[in-house]
Amino acid sequence: MVNNIHEQYMRRCLELAECGLGNVAPNPMVGAVIVHNGKIIGEGYHRKFGEPHAEVNAVNAVEDKDLLRESTLYVSLEPCNHAGKTPPCTNLILEHKIPRVVIAMVDPFEKVSGSGIQKLRANGVDVTVGILEDEAKWLNRRFITFYTKKRPYIILKWAQTLDGFIDIERTADSPIEPNWITNNACRTLVHRWRSEENGILVGNKTVINDNPQLNVRYWHGSNPTRILIDRTLATPNDRAIFDGTQPTVVFTGKNSGSSTRKELFSHIPFLDVVSIDFAKDAEVQMLDYLVQKNIQSIIVEGGSKTLQNLITLGYWDEARIFYGPKLFFKGVKAPSIVGEPIGSEEIDGTRLFYLVNSSATDKQ
Amino acid sequence: MVNNIHEQYMRRCLELAECGLGNVAPNPMVGAVIVHNGKIIGEGYHRKFGEPHAEVNAVNAVEDKDLLRESTLYVSLEPCNHAGKTPPCTNLILEHKIPRVVIAMVDPFEKVSGSGIQKLRANGVDVTVGILEDEAKWLNRRFITFYTKKRPYIILKWAQTLDGFIDIERTADSPIEPNWITNNACRTLVHRWRSEENGILVGNKTVINDNPQLNVRYWHGSNPTRILIDRTLATPNDRAIFDGTQPTVVFTGKNSGSSTRKELFSHIPFLDVVSIDFAKDAEVQMLDYLVQKNIQSIIVEGGSKTLQNLITLGYWDEARIFYGPKLFFKGVKAPSIVGEPIGSEEIDGTRLFYLVNSSATDKQ
Repeated sequence: MVNNIHEQYMRRCLELAECGLGNVAPNPMVGAVIVHNGKIIGEGYHRKFGEPHAEVNAVNAVEDKDLLRESTLYVSLEPCNHAGKTPPCTNLILEHKIPRVVIAMVDPFEKVSGSGIQKLRANGVDVTVGILEDEAKWLNRRFITFYTKKRPYIILKWAQTLDGFIDIERTADSPIEPNWITNNACRTLVHRWRSEENGILVGNKTVINDNPQLNVRYWHGSNPTRILIDRTLATPNDRAIFDGTQPTVVFTGKNSGSSTRKELFSHIPFLDVVSIDFAKDAEVQMLDYLVQKNIQSIIVEGGSKTLQNLITLGYWDEARIFYGPKLFFKGVKAPSIVGEPIGSEEIDGTRLFYLVNSSATDKQ
Repeated sequence: MVNNIHEQYMRRCLELAECGLGNVAPNPMVGAVIVHNGKIIGEGYHRKFGEPHAEVNAVNAVEDKDLLRESTLYVSLEPCNHAGKTPPCTNLILEHKIPRVVIAMVDPFEKVSGSGIQKLRANGVDVTVGILEDEAKWLNRRFITFYTKKRPYIILKWAQTLDGFIDIERTADSPIEPNWITNNACRTLVHRWRSEENGILVGNKTVINDNPQLNVRYWHGSNPTRILIDRTLATPNDRAIFDGTQPTVVFTGKNSGSSTRKELFSHIPFLDVVSIDFAKDAEVQMLDYLVQKNIQSIIVEGGSKTLQNLITLGYWDEARIFYGPKLFFKGVKAPSIVGEPIGSEEIDGTRLFYLVNSSATDKQ
């Protein structure tokens, strides 16, 4: 019964926390609710990286601060105990003499983990931990993966025909554009997904054949950093990915590309050309670079080889696969994947499956 | 304009003809309409093998036979000119002095082809041929294939998951039952299809693993002849296919099966065990046997090997493939096919595609 009441308020914390999706990384999404005599007197969430934490916003929302001494603070993540861009939230709780704190999950970030709870308890605060813990972990799966596996959270996305192709056979005369398998509703959803991740990764075949813009057009939100794998710098200059409108990383081989090409690239705004050694563990080098750049999550939009490489290496966390109502009979085979289905829906005749990687294979 | 009026009445003939589906083979489906001064005064169709032809039923339906001398007979197939189980329809037309006959298509049956039209014209009848010819040929595609290719019309049917499997991996402990990929509405539709064909073909793996009854339970109509390919007679006696309730053909190798087994089979009603030589052109021998038995059309319901063999040899005319909203990740791979899609529909979350074989490969 007590847990049911706890869960009710904690669910509200998670709802609030999710409002920060796409804006708070590399911080976690956090929501907080302050309850006095069975009534919510303050709410808050972490809105944007660099801005106040959820607890601060919730406390600020309380009109009569005297009530805090008789209130319970619900928060979806252990309050921080270190001074980062903002002062530690544990101090805030102790200053306002909030007597009870209910927490969904311990902070996985090594500078914080458990120490916030310890400090609160040492100062007489009644702390409960573990309410809706699974839900809180799912909400912050990008953040947790980034800090525990030291790599971005990886979401694979592709659309395949019912006979298992992701593209038709291309010839020299093929138009440079995608061969659509799904529909407008699915494209809108994909643009929403793009707004939720820090990076969007593709291989050079996809850019050569489809010329995608890799931005957020059919939804509102930030554009992800574009990431292109192009070992030989085979992608022509005229592709949209080189339009200089959005941060873009090109991973290429150590001695690839003419000096003219590199000179040209140096004039494109927001473009980083990063040389890696494709002879050994190219994916590890790329993911390490993205970690350095604080890219907490990426969505991978093809092509088949890029996706299959990540699947084979176990470098993926979620797959979102569209099965469109078409048959191509021949063309580029869709990746082969084994995962745990966690959901499925029908979108205007296209079936969408959500998988998670339930295998332990990973570089960790 | 004239053709539009012709098409209107001919479409009615085709509607009537289709009422005979499943009951008239090895005869074709035929419908006839008699029009006098822009009004239909008689209609008929061939209802059942051995019963009167469409023209006879249409003429019989006309109350005032004197009107026939001023009427047009529309009929979806060239009237027969030979005495079979019934007298030739050309005689009927001439006796009643019907002045105009409009025909959709020439009869492909070699004893008739063109001779009916010739006789009518020689006797002063105004004959028009070719109205809705394509539609009429599609309607009687089983009949046409049977007489021109000297083999049954072959419809392939299977259900596969979105990741391309038709069954899970079976072990010794697996229950003997199908692993359903689609839904009840699809099963009902398949039973309708069974009622429309003369035979239903499966390989022994399907019978061993799924134990199907291969009859018409969820629809009204005749049961098709069950046809099992079982080279080594590996199918256990307890399978439904040996229940003696419906004509059943078992194709097996020349020296397969113990004498006890053959003695047992001899007591099962309606069961024919047919020895063929699997060392060469087994499919040709089987199809030739089915032609001898007047089986004009078959629906092939698996397994994957049986289907793939027929696809590889080009022995198929239609494929009806269900793509159910499931993922198996491993198991029995679905057949690989290339065909021309002629239609597609969504049935309770399952996508159904209809293909026709547009390649020329065949034993012809």
